[in-house]
Amino acid sequence: MTRLASEDDFLAAIDRHFTNAHPHLCVGRGDDCAVIACPPRMAVSTDLFNEHSHFRTSYFSPGDIGHKALAVNISDLAACGARPLGFSLALTAPADLSREFCDEMLAAMAALAREHDMALTGGDLTRGDALSLCITVWGGPAPRPAPAAVAEDGASPFLRRGGCQPGDHLFLMGRAGLARVGLLALESMGTEAARLYPEACRAHLRPRPQVAAGLALAAICGTGDARIALLDVSDGLARDLPRLIGADRGSGLGAELAMDPDAQPGEVRAYALANDLDPVDMAFTGGEDYALLGNCRPAMLDAVRAAVPGLTLLGQVTADGVVLVNGDLPASAGFDHFSG
Amino acid sequence: MTRLASEDDFLAAIDRHFTNAHPHLCVGRGDDCAVIACPPRMAVSTDLFNEHSHFRTSYFSPGDIGHKALAVNISDLAACGARPLGFSLALTAPADLSREFCDEMLAAMAALAREHDMALTGGDLTRGDALSLCITVWGGPAPRPAPAAVAEDGASPFLRRGGCQPGDHLFLMGRAGLARVGLLALESMGTEAARLYPEACRAHLRPRPQVAAGLALAAICGTGDARIALLDVSDGLARDLPRLIGADRGSGLGAELAMDPDAQPGEVRAYALANDLDPVDMAFTGGEDYALLGNCRPAMLDAVRAAVPGLTLLGQVTADGVVLVNGDLPASAGFDHFSG
Repeated sequence: MTRLASEDDFLAAIDRHFTNAHPHLCVGRGDDCAVIACPPRMAVSTDLFNEHSHFRTSYFSPGDIGHKALAVNISDLAACGARPLGFSLALTAPADLSREFCDEMLAAMAALAREHDMALTGGDLTRGDALSLCITVWGGPAPRPAPAAVAEDGASPFLRRGGCQPGDHLFLMGRAGLARVGLLALESMGTEAARLYPEACRAHLRPRPQVAAGLALAAICGTGDARIALLDVSDGLARDLPRLIGADRGSGLGAELAMDPDAQPGEVRAYALANDLDPVDMAFTGGEDYALLGNCRPAMLDAVRAAVPGLTLLGQVTADGVVLVNGDLPASAGFDHFSG
Repeated sequence: MTRLASEDDFLAAIDRHFTNAHPHLCVGRGDDCAVIACPPRMAVSTDLFNEHSHFRTSYFSPGDIGHKALAVNISDLAACGARPLGFSLALTAPADLSREFCDEMLAAMAALAREHDMALTGGDLTRGDALSLCITVWGGPAPRPAPAAVAEDGASPFLRRGGCQPGDHLFLMGRAGLARVGLLALESMGTEAARLYPEACRAHLRPRPQVAAGLALAAICGTGDARIALLDVSDGLARDLPRLIGADRGSGLGAELAMDPDAQPGEVRAYALANDLDPVDMAFTGGEDYALLGNCRPAMLDAVRAAVPGLTLLGQVTADGVVLVNGDLPASAGFDHFSG
């Protein structure tokens, strides 16, 4: 294994994996700034992906790290119904980071970037004790029929939260609970976990951002009763559902969810059975699936289901300020990366 | 001192210091993404500002940290002649970070952001052993006469490197060497250094990005012989001058610099005298001043000097691939944060 000797070594690795010519890049990497071509409005988001807090190198391969660092950021764009355009990468890396590690990490990140046609515009590199990837992503509006290209309120062609009402349907795109099972199994068994819980480990190590689903909903979303809101479930339904319905900001809304234990993912049920846990509780509290949680008016439900085949109906928004799962108050809250 | 207990505590601190309503912010912080209003082309840049690598809390106040983390990023925009618009902040913070520390840090960052009318669009927070601030900034084109608003080559209304020729003048906006003296004095004397070398310590702790100078040059810069290139001198002239003239990419160009020892900043001369060092060598190798180094054709020099009163002429670009300072080969190279 060869150590990355200098910033120039790292920049050369970047250039091996990421093209510096892209329709979105007017001036590529190499200057003090890149220059990007922008639609009139862009969605932007920043997420850290840090060793110890978000991943361990004991069971995350370099490729898993590169993939997930970008995937969790793309997921924020998906939740806004945005089409990914570009990103920047700031890497803090230990002195003994090898070229091979760096190459595998960047190769997986580049593969995901290509899948979504994203340009890497630049970034930074610094030495530090722990590996840390800080990514900022931006995206443009979903392609949609011209008259709807700017919402009637003039605000934004992107999906955004707010406007929830009692009676709204709640739905999920992607699965909940799998990544949590993957995390628990990997923490207790290391890479052996992938033999018993392959899908759960993949969900934790290589989450797939739901970009197509977000774009499909943005394309049919209007204002008022046609409005659709989405949220990237990174901290688990228990913590993120109150955010979607504004309960954390005094909306006074609640929700009634129906989650059939037998309809939860097979590996969630298997893990729950083996460890004397409740599969519905695991699906409700488990984070990091990067599924998208949404709400819409009843009148929009058919259009939503047609736009995103395979979504899961979770229940409905209520006026009573309480979240019930299968008629009961759930036991636990979600995860706070800072206090947790 | 009260510990920051949760992500919500941090978000509340952000909201205390940064307005969430700004002409550049269509959808503010709180959703998965912010939505920003964009000019057709934007300059973007990302810089890390990490404890141990870039600062020590022993002599950086919380306010110094907040200021400098943003200032070094704004300096990249300045080097492209871009007008700052917005930024995102990803903070990795130790568990014992206090509310008071966080407030002072954010207050100074907010003061600098207000000075440049920048919106904070969002970010992330994670716990970690060392304090780390990762900032991504973006900016729009400088206001300029309409016909020149897009450069004739259709590429970009921003200043960019390249196009250097023998005979081009080299000039500097800001001072070189002061921040290095500040660093050396603070490292050896701690905060006591500010009594002996106040200007140098300020240069290291609270650098002033040269936004006005960058904008003034972008406003007069055209293509071809009217072209002006700038570079943010973060690693020192010794390392950054070859980048400006493309010597690090095989341009074959060199430079002859005339740097009068008596014209160097007073505290650089005083520190050099007290420590048996050469003031010109300190000015040539010292980094982190965030001065702007530029080149232009001789025919543009009068316009450049009129646009930025007080700039320092450094010398001229040569064809012979060698950088000479006062007729001699300089002794030392600049600083590589990764190998250094």
